[in-house]
Amino acid sequence: MNLLFLGTGAGVPAKLRNVTSIALKLLEERNAVWLFDCGEATQHQILHTTLKPRKIEKIFITHLHGDHIFGLPGLLGSRSFQGGTTKLTVYGPKGIREFLDTSLHVSETHLKYPLSIIECQEGLVFEDSQFTVEALLLDHAVPSFGFRITEHDKQGALDAEKLRKAGIPPGPIYQRLKNGETVTLENGRTIRGSDFVGPPKKGRVVAIVGDTRPCENAVTLARDADLLVHESTFSGDHEQMAREYFHSTTLQAAETARRANVHQLCLTHISSRYGKEDWKVLEKEAQSIFPNTQIVSDFTSIDI
Amino acid sequence: MNLLFLGTGAGVPAKLRNVTSIALKLLEERNAVWLFDCGEATQHQILHTTLKPRKIEKIFITHLHGDHIFGLPGLLGSRSFQGGTTKLTVYGPKGIREFLDTSLHVSETHLKYPLSIIECQEGLVFEDSQFTVEALLLDHAVPSFGFRITEHDKQGALDAEKLRKAGIPPGPIYQRLKNGETVTLENGRTIRGSDFVGPPKKGRVVAIVGDTRPCENAVTLARDADLLVHESTFSGDHEQMAREYFHSTTLQAAETARRANVHQLCLTHISSRYGKEDWKVLEKEAQSIFPNTQIVSDFTSIDI
Ligand SMILES: [Zn+2]
Ligand SMILES: [Zn+2]
Repeated sequence: MNLLFLGTGAGVPAKLRNVTSIALKLLEERNAVWLFDCGEATQHQILHTTLKPRKIEKIFITHLHGDHIFGLPGLLGSRSFQGGTTKLTVYGPKGIREFLDTSLHVSETHLKYPLSIIECQEGLVFEDSQFTVEALLLDHAVPSFGFRITEHDKQGALDAEKLRKAGIPPGPIYQRLKNGETVTLENGRTIRGSDFVGPPKKGRVVAIVGDTRPCENAVTLARDADLLVHESTFSGDHEQMAREYFHSTTLQAAETARRANVHQLCLTHISSRYGKEDWKVLEKEAQSIFPNTQIVSDFTSIDI
Repeated sequence: MNLLFLGTGAGVPAKLRNVTSIALKLLEERNAVWLFDCGEATQHQILHTTLKPRKIEKIFITHLHGDHIFGLPGLLGSRSFQGGTTKLTVYGPKGIREFLDTSLHVSETHLKYPLSIIECQEGLVFEDSQFTVEALLLDHAVPSFGFRITEHDKQGALDAEKLRKAGIPPGPIYQRLKNGETVTLENGRTIRGSDFVGPPKKGRVVAIVGDTRPCENAVTLARDADLLVHESTFSGDHEQMAREYFHSTTLQAAETARRANVHQLCLTHISSRYGKEDWKVLEKEAQSIFPNTQIVSDFTSIDI
């Protein structure tokens, strides 16, 4: 599991930071990539990575501001042009369907794969045997979701070597033992699965909190997460301006991370008013409250 | 008058060529820039030039395929964000209004300048004291316009030195002479304006022919133009494929230039199947029919 930041700027594209998009690479887990937001030229950013658009399985949109959605029609079209045939699902606030339907219809973009658009509500957005995605509304000028992605805990591995040593030959019984069952053999011997199964592997949790003022739902989404991605449009001294524009400062984002007891904090959505020389200063501000913080840049890659 | 190519690729963005946009810089003429088409990330390309989005006065859209319009909502929003306050007019085929209205509405992009959207027909699209813009339909999979931009001839300059030498003092009479009138002075002397006015300066003509198969209307638009910009998606040997996809080959574009008797031909909308090493070959193909041809690249600048 790896996060690749494709755009880390705020509002308008700038030379050093494109507008927002984050790729959650789940290649080992499901040979798929999930995108969070898709600002203009996200597909251009992807050209400079090893990501394959056809592997994008889901796109979660936090909110409908242009810097988070204007790259969507182009990316959907190119995914088709470049041979994508598998289903793609877009999740987002009400309005995302109208935007996509109109853009694809007017431009006569005929996708060669099934596109599913889900206008989501707070609560459970997606669940399968591997992952759960939950959404809560944040505090922004328009409805803006934060997402909590939870990987389910994995069963411990069956210790085949130990089973062999105990004289239990491979067979269907192995799966039952792996599931933790207690099995009685034909010879009357009783085998407890728990004796041969390693400890379960804790699933990872990532919280992606888009544009917002500091708010309780951000803390709820991020509770005990391995990684929190939080917007941080302004420096600590611009609390008033951040409030006015429905954004957060470095300090506010760090405070959310501290309260939520996350392991690691990545700050993104950095205003272009801050040049390269300011980024370390912003990072230090946040670290004064939550030490395990970094300001990410376009193409920063984080293993989770 | 200068043409700056912002995107010269076909269909999808590639590392070496972005999707279509062309800037006609009229800085000396009217302190303004006109765009022709606005593919995704046109505003990103502009970041690497000296163009100011607030100086963009008009945007002409040839057709509604995504690679020609998906950069429009973002550019309009950024023009506002970056302080543009003067009116902007977008001309394009029917459907451009629905696309822009929906994109701006859904994203709650509130422009701080008046936006006028004109869904145009064949014929005269725009005219003022300086320029005429005419449109004709080409032969593409969807309605696709070519544009002919005609600068009006300029009156010759009044030779003030010669007038002084002839003993005619400056005054309102100068304007009448400049207009070519014959004026009788109080002393009965007759002065012919034509004796004191230099030759008129011929206005320049640029034809921009977007996605199309070769067609008569392209020749009509380009007739005797100083510069013809023509699409050239495929090499000369791919005539069948060009026809199938409603595009032109190098040879077909050159033949249109030859028939129209233009001065200079710029080929754009080059498929990404052609790498850097192929461009000279494509150029030579076209030059075999129309010698004054060049294949343009992103950021190629042509003075007219
Ligand atoms: Zn934003
Ligand atoms: Zn095109």
